[in-house]
Amino acid sequence: MGKVRIQIASSLDGFVAGPDQSVENPLGVGGMSLHEWVFTLAAWREPHGLEGGEVNESTPVVEESQANLGAVLMGRNMFGGGPGPWGDDPWNGWWGENPPFHVPVFVLTHHEREPLVMDGGTTFTFVTDGIDSALEQARDAAGDQDVQISGGASVAGQYLAAGLVDELNINLVPLILGAGERLLDGVGTGLRLEQVRAIEAPGVTHLRYRVVH
Amino acid sequence: MGKVRIQIASSLDGFVAGPDQSVENPLGVGGMSLHEWVFTLAAWREPHGLEGGEVNESTPVVEESQANLGAVLMGRNMFGGGPGPWGDDPWNGWWGENPPFHVPVFVLTHHEREPLVMDGGTTFTFVTDGIDSALEQARDAAGDQDVQISGGASVAGQYLAAGLVDELNINLVPLILGAGERLLDGVGTGLRLEQVRAIEAPGVTHLRYRVVH
Repeated sequence: MGKVRIQIASSLDGFVAGPDQSVENPLGVGGMSLHEWVFTLAAWREPHGLEGGEVNESTPVVEESQANLGAVLMGRNMFGGGPGPWGDDPWNGWWGENPPFHVPVFVLTHHEREPLVMDGGTTFTFVTDGIDSALEQARDAAGDQDVQISGGASVAGQYLAAGLVDELNINLVPLILGAGERLLDGVGTGLRLEQVRAIEAPGVTHLRYRVVH
Repeated sequence: MGKVRIQIASSLDGFVAGPDQSVENPLGVGGMSLHEWVFTLAAWREPHGLEGGEVNESTPVVEESQANLGAVLMGRNMFGGGPGPWGDDPWNGWWGENPPFHVPVFVLTHHEREPLVMDGGTTFTFVTDGIDSALEQARDAAGDQDVQISGGASVAGQYLAAGLVDELNINLVPLILGAGERLLDGVGTGLRLEQVRAIEAPGVTHLRYRVVH
């Protein structure tokens, strides 16, 4: 069985999204800046269908996060959608016709919806019966490979608090957001972490922690 | 003129002291664990008059923080004392007869007190007229050497917010404190940081940021 791992970018003051999140601005004010380090990388651009890009100390970290990946879990806002029901003409999320995941993606939501089959191997399955069910479905889909929890903060924090995560990867960016959503608020002081590594890269430090069960 | 640098340990959720701080427990519940990585080091034990200890990746970081140091700034709680006035028989802080600083130390407080001359080159000067005055006095005492702001969170945060800090060193420990005092709450989103380095060491990551003025 593969690992369950969180992969998330955080500001130095602990925010994984900025304030005033909305359907138009799901990362909140300033939140997009958390990801600038990755947009310039060839290793990120290629699976997103973009040419060019840099190779630097972040490259092996990004390649590793894409390797051995069997399924992805995310919250509804990260898929793309407001707080209401899907409506009669629901859209297909932020990720375009050929989403960059290329594996089954499980979206936690309160609103039922038929699965969406996209180009390039990505399917979105909408799970309405909670985090345990979503993880079970993701594990089944992933087989021996890993399940990645990509966010947002609420979904990732719920899995951490429930003790269902094996590995926490934080891409720490030297940014002060001042407000927004924190990953580690409410996960509880019972969460025991062991530092696995810290990799310095341009404009970001890649931290990896093992959850001690 | 030397640099003004903050040197502080933080939990992964951003707390530099735990909850329920008191005169008896100035670091709050769990706060002492933020410093465990340093207590085992020979480089820390020697200036504290203790024998033995380890040498590891943290050693050069600790040695560097002790080098070129001309003065230290701290809040009253870090010196050692509750919120009230000093009283008729004030004690001389947490740091013993031979404090580990060996340089002039400036203590921000609301209560006047005569300077304290300790063994080993440490003097405590109590400053009641604000952070600008305290920094000016520390700079004068430091000459060409650096001024280190050692905490607590409130004092360090005030200097960051006022744009008076050149370098921010965070020793990031894989601990969830869940509550307490955060360094970066309230410093404002105008604080611009540039990552200088990240050093992985046993049980801690040493992060250094330059403040962009």
